[in-house]
Formats: sequence, C-alpha cells, structure tokens
Amino acid sequence: MNQFGQNFRLTVWGESHGAQIGVSMDGIRAGIPLSEEDFAEDLARRRSGAPGTTPRREPDLPQIVSGLYNGYTTGAPLTVEFANTNTRSQDYANLTRHYRPSHADLVAHHKFAGFNDPRGGGHFSARLTLGLVAAGVVAKKMLPTGVSFATRLTEIGGCTDPAGFDEVLRAAAADRDSVGGVVECRVQGIPLGLGEPFFDSAESMIAHLLFAVPAVKGVEFGSGFAGARLRGSENNDCFTDVGGTTVTNHAGGINGGITNGNEIVVRAALKPTPSIGREQMTYNLTTDKVEPLEIRGRHDVCVALRGAVVVEATVAIALANFIR
Amino acid sequence: MNQFGQNFRLTVWGESHGAQIGVSMDGIRAGIPLSEEDFAEDLARRRSGAPGTTPRREPDLPQIVSGLYNGYTTGAPLTVEFANTNTRSQDYANLTRHYRPSHADLVAHHKFAGFNDPRGGGHFSARLTLGLVAAGVVAKKMLPTGVSFATRLTEIGGCTDPAGFDEVLRAAAADRDSVGGVVECRVQGIPLGLGEPFFDSAESMIAHLLFAVPAVKGVEFGSGFAGARLRGSENNDCFTDVGGTTVTNHAGGINGGITNGNEIVVRAALKPTPSIGREQMTYNLTTDKVEPLEIRGRHDVCVALRGAVVVEATVAIALANFIR
Amino acid sequence: MNQFGQNFRLTVWGESHGAQIGVSMDGIRAGIPLSEEDFAEDLARRRSGAPGTTPRREPDLPQIVSGLYNGYTTGAPLTVEFANTNTRSQDYANLTRHYRPSHADLVAHHKFAGFNDPRGGGHFSARLTLGLVAAGVVAKKMLPTGVSFATRLTEIGGCTDPAGFDEVLRAAAADRDSVGGVVECRVQGIPLGLGEPFFDSAESMIAHLLFAVPAVKGVEFGSGFAGARLRGSENNDCFTDVGGTTVTNHAGGINGGITNGNEIVVRAALKPTPSIGREQMTYNLTTDKVEPLEIRGRHDVCVALRGAVVVEATVAIALANFIR
Amino acid sequence: MNQFGQNFRLTVWGESHGAQIGVSMDGIRAGIPLSEEDFAEDLARRRSGAPGTTPRREPDLPQIVSGLYNGYTTGAPLTVEFANTNTRSQDYANLTRHYRPSHADLVAHHKFAGFNDPRGGGHFSARLTLGLVAAGVVAKKMLPTGVSFATRLTEIGGCTDPAGFDEVLRAAAADRDSVGGVVECRVQGIPLGLGEPFFDSAESMIAHLLFAVPAVKGVEFGSGFAGARLRGSENNDCFTDVGGTTVTNHAGGINGGITNGNEIVVRAALKPTPSIGREQMTYNLTTDKVEPLEIRGRHDVCVALRGAVVVEATVAIALANFIR
Repeated sequence: MNQFGQNFRLTVWGESHGAQIGVSMDGIRAGIPLSEEDFAEDLARRRSGAPGTTPRREPDLPQIVSGLYNGYTTGAPLTVEFANTNTRSQDYANLTRHYRPSHADLVAHHKFAGFNDPRGGGHFSARLTLGLVAAGVVAKKMLPTGVSFATRLTEIGGCTDPAGFDEVLRAAAADRDSVGGVVECRVQGIPLGLGEPFFDSAESMIAHLLFAVPAVKGVEFGSGFAGARLRGSENNDCFTDVGGTTVTNHAGGINGGITNGNEIVVRAALKPTPSIGREQMTYNLTTDKVEPLEIRGRHDVCVALRGAVVVEATVAIALANFIR
Repeated sequence: MNQFGQNFRLTVWGESHGAQIGVSMDGIRAGIPLSEEDFAEDLARRRSGAPGTTPRREPDLPQIVSGLYNGYTTGAPLTVEFANTNTRSQDYANLTRHYRPSHADLVAHHKFAGFNDPRGGGHFSARLTLGLVAAGVVAKKMLPTGVSFATRLTEIGGCTDPAGFDEVLRAAAADRDSVGGVVECRVQGIPLGLGEPFFDSAESMIAHLLFAVPAVKGVEFGSGFAGARLRGSENNDCFTDVGGTTVTNHAGGINGGITNGNEIVVRAALKPTPSIGREQMTYNLTTDKVEPLEIRGRHDVCVALRGAVVVEATVAIALANFIR
Repeated sequence: MNQFGQNFRLTVWGESHGAQIGVSMDGIRAGIPLSEEDFAEDLARRRSGAPGTTPRREPDLPQIVSGLYNGYTTGAPLTVEFANTNTRSQDYANLTRHYRPSHADLVAHHKFAGFNDPRGGGHFSARLTLGLVAAGVVAKKMLPTGVSFATRLTEIGGCTDPAGFDEVLRAAAADRDSVGGVVECRVQGIPLGLGEPFFDSAESMIAHLLFAVPAVKGVEFGSGFAGARLRGSENNDCFTDVGGTTVTNHAGGINGGITNGNEIVVRAALKPTPSIGREQMTYNLTTDKVEPLEIRGRHDVCVALRGAVVVEATVAIALANFIR
Repeated sequence: MNQFGQNFRLTVWGESHGAQIGVSMDGIRAGIPLSEEDFAEDLARRRSGAPGTTPRREPDLPQIVSGLYNGYTTGAPLTVEFANTNTRSQDYANLTRHYRPSHADLVAHHKFAGFNDPRGGGHFSARLTLGLVAAGVVAKKMLPTGVSFATRLTEIGGCTDPAGFDEVLRAAAADRDSVGGVVECRVQGIPLGLGEPFFDSAESMIAHLLFAVPAVKGVEFGSGFAGARLRGSENNDCFTDVGGTTVTNHAGGINGGITNGNEIVVRAALKPTPSIGREQMTYNLTTDKVEPLEIRGRHDVCVALRGAVVVEATVAIALANFIR
C-alpha cells in the first residue's frame, strides 16, 4: 500500500504524467519551523541535469498545501505537492504493449487488469521519489539536533574510484546503455535505542523503505555481505564504554535491531536503469512475438546519481519514524 | 513492535529462558488441514545437533492452543507455543554487566532501563525464530498449490564450495570462533502480481522480515549487488511471452516491487555468531574497564546452518501476507 | 492519526481556511468507471443553503489529481482535492484566546503547543468531512451491485415528526441557537460475512469512523439503547432460512460483529452545533476571566442536516473496507 | 482482525472450549511492577456466581508466560493465558445446525465455511473478554497516577433504580429469559490531550473497542443521545480556566476527539443475552424448517453484570493506547 510508518506516517500518490505528485506526512510534532525553501537543497540533489542524468527538467517546486501555519508545522498532516509540467506522453505510446525489459509495465498491466496509467511508468515512475525526498527533509528536522548525514556513491558500474566515474558514465552513454551503482549513507549522532524488535528492527524499517525505491535490489548494513565472510572474532565490535562506543563498526551502528549510538552505515545497490536507448529484444503483445524495442523518452544513464539523496531521505524517514 | 503483516499477521512473544516461546497467526483462511506433525520437518531443519550447531537440545514440540478444530484451521487466530525446557541461565550470570561484543545486551539494557530479561538474550534470542519457522509452515500451506522452495547455503565463512564447508566449520570450532554465511532461497510457482507498491513492494516485505532475523545484515534479490556492477543491457531480462516469462532472471522474479511469475531469488547475509568461546575484549560495567570476556553457554559455530530454514520461512510468510 | 482502514484506506488533510482539503484513497480496485460528476449528488447533499444550514457557500468542486486514467480507476491511490475559496478568517480573530464552549479550540491549543491553525477550526473543522463524502462516493462503487442506502433524520431538536422539523429550526434560528439531531442510515443488499472479529467487528469499524465525524456523540445499531431495555425473548431475531433472514431486525443486520445479510441499521446522535450566535460565557485567556463571547462567522443551526450524507458516507467507507 | 492498538497493542486468541484463552500485549514500558495477584480484583468482578450470572465457574487464574522478569515488565510482549477447564461441549451439540437467534453461530458457519469451532460459541464467546479484563489491568498501570475509574450499571432491563435490579433479574430468571443493561464508566484524572484526530479520536478508539465486546449495541459519550435533543446553549460546556475545566460536562470529557481534562463519561448499551432457556423459534438446517429451540448450557440472565468490568477495561485500554 501507499502508506509507510507508525509515528511518522507517509502517504504518497501521483503518476509520472498525471496532474501532480504528492505526499502527506502525519505525526509531525507542532512547532517545527518550515518553509518551501527548506526543500530546495535536497530537491536540487535529486534534480536532473548533471552528466549521467535524464534531460527531462522539472522545476519541482514544492507546494505546501496543509499543516503549516505562520511558518511552523501545526501537528496536522503536512502535505506537499509537485506539479508535473514537462511530460512527453507520446514517447510512451509504443510501450503499453511492447513491454520494456525489467520494467514494471508488464506486471502493472496484469495486476491492474490493463487500467494502470502507463504514461512514463505511471505510479511506478521514479518520479514518485520526489515525495520521499520532501519527506526526508521534514524527517531530518524531526531527528535530534546534531544528527548529520553523509551520502556518497561508492561504486558506479563496478568502478570504485570516484575519479573514474565520469569515464564510466561517458562510455555507457556513448553506447546508449546504463550503469548501476552503490550508494552508501552514513548517519552520525543517532542516539542509542531506536528500533522496535522483534519485527520493526532499525534494519527492517530502513530496508523496507529502501526496497520501495525503484532500482534498489540490495541493502546491507555495516560489514554486510563482506561480514558474512569473516569470523566472529574479526567481525565483532568491542565496546569501550557504557554508552556503547565501539572500536570498530562492523555492525553499522545497529545491534539486535536497535541503534547503538555509533555511526549508522547502510549501503544500497541500485541496478542499472532498465530504460536504455539501445535496441533490446522483448515480447510485443501486438505481434505476439519477441521483437526489437527501441525506447524513446529521456532517461538516466545512472539512476544512482540522483538516487543518492533518495537513499538518504529513506534512512532519515525510517529513523524519524522511531522517534516518539 | 512484535507484529508483522496485514493479511497474514503474526504476533510473537517469549524469552529464551522464560516459560515459553509463542506465535499467534491471524488471517489464516478456514479449512486448511493442519496437525502438529506438519511442523516436524521444518523444525528439524532448525534444530541443533549437526556439526557447527549449538549443543543445546530442545525437543521443540509445537503445541497448537487455538484456531484448530477437528484437524482444520477455523479462521480464528492459530496460536502455537513451544515450552522452554533446556535452559542454563547460570551461563549468563556474568553477561548482564560485561557486555558481549556485537550483541544486543548493551542496547537492551539501556532501551529497557535495565528491566529486560538478560537470560540467554531474553526476547532478543535467536530462539524467537522458532515462531517464524512455525509460521512459515502455515504460510506455505496458504500459498497456491505448486509453489516450491529451494534453500541452501551458498557461502560459509567465505567458502563457496559446499564440499569445503565442513573444513571451514571444523577450523572455526577448533579456534572457538564462529563463521558467517549466505543463505539463498529460491521459490518457484509464485504467481505474477504479489506485492503492493509504493511502499509494500515484494522486496520491501521480504526484506523487512529478513532483517528481523537475528544475524541478518544484508539482503539482495536476483543479481543484487553484482547487478549494480552491470550495464542495463546486461542486467535486463527479456520478456518472451505475455505471462512475463524471462530469458534471464536478474530481477529475481520481481519487477517494480511485484512478482513477475519467474522464480523468486533472494539471498541473506548472516554475520558470524557474535557469541564465541575465545576470549574477547569488551567493556565491563562492574569494573568500568575494557576487559577480556569469555562467553560460556552453548553456541553455534555458524548460525547460517540453522538459519536457512528461518530465511525460507520469512520468505514464505512475506509472500503469504500478499494473498487475499 | 489521519488514516483509516486496511483494504480501503483513507488519508485526509487540510484546514478550513488553508489552501485545500484533500483525501487520498488507497486499495481501490482498478477498472471502476469514475468521473468528477459522480461526486455531485452526495456533495450537494452536504452543501449548505437549505434552511438551518450555514450561509457559507463553497462550490466544492472535486478535483481528481491521481489514480484515474481514461475515466477508470487505475488501482493506484485516488486523490481528490477541494479548494477553499470562501474563507473569512477575520471572523475567528477573537477566538484564539477566548475559547468557544464545547469546541476543540482549547484542547487543540494545548495539544499542539499553540501552533495549530485556528482559522475556522483549522484541521478540526467540519469542512474535513468533504473528504469523507468524496470517499463515500467511491466506497459505494466498491460495494456489490444492488446495495442501496436510505438515510434520514429521525429527530431534530427532540422532535421526531418530520413535519415539525422546520418549526424547530426556525425557532432555534430566531434565538440564534442551534439544535442537535439523530441520523439513521439503513443499508440494504450487504452480503452476509462482512466484519472481522474479534476487534474489527462491523459495528467497531462503523462506529470508529462515525465518532471521527465532528458532533457525533452517540452511535447505536438496531434496537441499540432501547434493546438494552428488552428481554432476550423480545430482542432476539428468529432466523427463517439458512441464508440468515430474520423475522425482526433488532440486531441491525449484525451478529457477532459480522453482517448477517439483513438490512444494516445504524443511528448517530449529533450534538447541537456548539457555535451559536447568542452570547455565551466562557474563559478568556487574554483577561484570565470567564466572560461573554459572541461568535461571529457563519454557522449551521443544525449540523445534522448536512451531516446525514456524512453519516451515510462513513457507513459506506467502513463496509467497503471489509471487501477484499 | 484480532489485534488492536498502536502504542499499546493487544492480540487475543482462543476459543471457549479450546485449550486456553490468551492475550499478548505489546508496547508496555519496561519497569512496571506486576504480579499475577494484580489481576485478581478485576477478574473477580468478571467472574460468575452472583445472582443473574452463569453457573459456569472457572478459576480463571492468569498465567504470565512472557514479558515479566523479577516482578517487573521487561518492555517485551507481556502474554497472559487462562486455561479452559470447566467446559461442557455436549451442551452445544444441537446448536451447530439449529441456529440460536441473534447469535453468531449462523454467520460464523457461513463466513468460515463450516470450519469454525462451534463449542460454546468458539472464538465468538464472551469468554474472550477475559483477555480484555487482563489487558485492562495492565492498561490502568500504564495510565498516569491519579487516574480512577468508577463503573456501574445505570439500567437493568429498563429499570434505572438499583434497588429494583434484583427483582428484575429474579423475574427474568423465573421466565428462563434474559435482560439487557446499560453500563456507565467514568474516569477521573485523565490529562488533557489524549486522542488523535482526524480518525483516531478518543471517542473513536473507545467505541471501536467497546463494539468489539459481545452484546454491546450502543455507545454514547457525555450527554450522548439525550444531548442531541438539546439546544447548543443548553448542551455547551462553559470553560472556566485555561486548563479546560468546564461547569457542566455534556461533552463527557472530550472535545474535538481529544480529552479535555474533565471526567470521561461513556455509556454502553448491552443487549439481553440471546441465549435463553425458554423455547424460541428459529431455523434448523437439519430439517430445513423453523422449529422450536431449547438452549441448554449455562448462561447469564444479564451479561451487563459481568460486563461492567469489561467495559471499564476497554476504556482503560483505549486510553492507555494514546500514551506514548
């Protein structure tokens, strides 16, 4: 369903080429200073335009339509909307029956009996992550003072050297292809005690949200998959004080599903954008044949670039949801 | 919190050394044949005794105390309980103040203001996964006929050759150490259409549950982290028919958060058991010093061995929760 | 919180004098034909203008901003918004500190630390019920064909004769006072089996929603409070066939929390509008005294008049929420 | 479903003649002193034996099987179980096909496709309220100190004079009939601010739970249905100080869905027990005819007698659920 959270609860709606994308946030305490300008920085990080990102440009100006009064949150639902302006639905005319590989078009067609809005991916579009970024901005304001986020790409297309990223992107673009990436988000200043086992562990809630982000296919905390190759004596983090400070941080700041006061470390694997310009074979319902498809439209070479702030937003939201 | 799910809803309770572990399941349709024997096979897979597992032996006989009548589910909550019999709480006497590295003891002590039950990890014990395995058995019966699970360890302690697993375990045991592992679960026969985007994608719900399992620190679907190193043209799965069959399965059977009818492929990284026999340094509240700790008690060399069926159960539960 | 439901889930937002009132509905099956005109009839029933209703006139034109494509629901969230146009916030200037008796102003001020939007009651305004009426329209389309609603006022200001209602309203208006009323909603055609005991009985879910409607202070089903004065032999409903048809319907169509196939009968008591024109004594924070208050603004003599369709909408929503 | 609540979350299970009745409570803060003796007083109020109550006697000894350690709550789920000992299932042999009027037997049979446990009403039995009473005891300990409950029957069989209650009961018993009643619960000391509009108003949550109690068919707050017959000038409560104290309390302590610091006043109408000893006509599936039914078994003349503590428990639970 399109709701997430208990204490900080999000509802999202909208389609890529519909009237608007919206998000309503409930559970925000009254009295937080907020303005539409506060969203600018994170929205800019998600915006396209840099090398490797889609040429579709949207101003993405947030409109706060409820829950704000005289510059402060009121405690009532805070709703933020974004108009969809720069849509080119005709680019998608051929895709409703000639299914893009690894896209949601086919499953959406079946699940919704053909009534889904196919334009630009409809409700499955990565454009929905606009709402997450907006909610992330609010979530950060709900977290204790002193919390800071550091988010970066640790890999693009298998390259782990940031100096090589541009070349990887250029080569893929030249081939009208795309590349995946790994985003790492580190959060400092989170107090010990967030997380509600058994089922709502800190990892569970963060991963739940992360896997809602289009393109995310893997999530790990701390040493993650690499930690599974270590011995206990290597992977264990020695506590050095009663507050829970550890020498190493293989746990990524979470023990038993509860934050332990150390830095939160989470990584998300984002697959290469499935929409690529080069020709691909895939099933065409009109001809009932597997035929070459050329995807028009404007797409990202690497969604992980714009996805970094989305990953950061989800982590902020999941953590804010634990605050009561 | 200790509830999970919407359509198939679990509630778990209990402590490692308390009277019992229990799970209550809601949303089971009436008329499913069920007996206590039906739990035997999966519970046996979770039971200790094999090389690499803890010497603590529990009969783990399930008692169905509600929701069953004349051998069939009634539609009312189905509750299964397991008595705790073989507890040696004295093994934990020294651990309430000398915090085991990478364990939940310290965070639990703080979060619950010192009132948590520390014996055997209390409510944080992996013994709680008994309830998940029981729920997994019921979940499998709720899935469409023809669904089959294949679950295996793809790595132990970094070794990817099953023939080498025994030696890895033996070496770690000899060092009174532990090793991690990777469990892969594949599910065939899941129909297209399970998953409720935006937030309750198939990946989100499976990962949510998996990260509730103690020791899980990473989750990936299909090509996962490796897929993030590929190009779109390599990672995309070509559709070959209207039903959604694909040539490759890098998506792990899930597109846009919705199952696409292909095999579900999910992998979980389980860290090495933090409880190891060899001495480790960690903070001791009594002396206010970092001091060597020797953990008594009976522990697994590799929790991933017994964790495989737990991983499988969580996947089954998450999928059953999508059935209405 | 501002969400309701599991299968048919509503989220509401907005303030009386803010930019807009909105409702987002999730869980609507794809393929239901819908247009903005479909809302006209029920919205007209809620609109002011008739004797006894507020002179505030709003066109209340619904805007569907998501979840609809080519005239059919898509299965994605359906969001409907209403602009607030005819606001006279200055009428409320004196009320932020001179608390209206039996209004939410005082509790809202405390609960939200003074940050709530006080204009027109803000988020506590009965204007929020616009969203419920809109959701009720959709809910009715989700119910099985053949379901019909009959809703009427059975009492106004203690008068149970419809022919006397006008005189009751006229007299109250002449005194710049208000009157309460009782709304009865009857639903035919609801199949046997809706309701999810133990906690989500049909009565529980309907009453939950009804008591969210401003002014509702009592709810009863079937013989209700009068039935509590009968003997079992008088109140019991004799079954006449295997389908559950009963001779009488003291149960109001619900047994054991589950609809039994007979007519649903529910009544809601709506208190007299607390906002009245005649002078009342109440606490004034500015002077720290109990002082006479004269409430300006435009108010209903009897909210139950416009509340009838709101009651009907809530019943429809609660029933639709049980459909899977 | 069989869960209720967000912050204080209950799960109930069990059948009247099954192995046990149980309740698991989540969200209880760690460190509350608790023992099995603490349940004695309220359980005694629910116990049968007084005139007008069923002759079925159960010791109803609570067993705390999780969430308690060294006499204090641990913060993990607190589970309480009650064994079913005094069952006479043979009394119900004739009822599985000859449907008791106004009972859940028929709807349960249809809803659960004939697989429901019919013995003693199965999961629909009023015996399930044992769990509510136990949860109510814990809920009261979660409320702020100084909160006190006063609960009484204001009507039995239409008689409003307590001195006449015995005669009403005696007369009904002599006729092998039953009577309904009205229970009023008043709560003092509840702070201003509990309740989460729009949907989770204080009235909504209390009514939701109350209507889950078997036999409850009406709920009203403060002046309730009588208030709907008053004018605004009569029904309004004048505030006398900034804390929200009012001269009258027609609102029953709740404004705009939020507690206002005055006494909470709620009344529940409980219908007469449908199970009566005297012969009634009703449909018999075996003969496919409407035939006389004589209900054996042991039943209450007036469930409202034992229901008073259940009503009180539900109010306590609903209020505790608002505490964060």
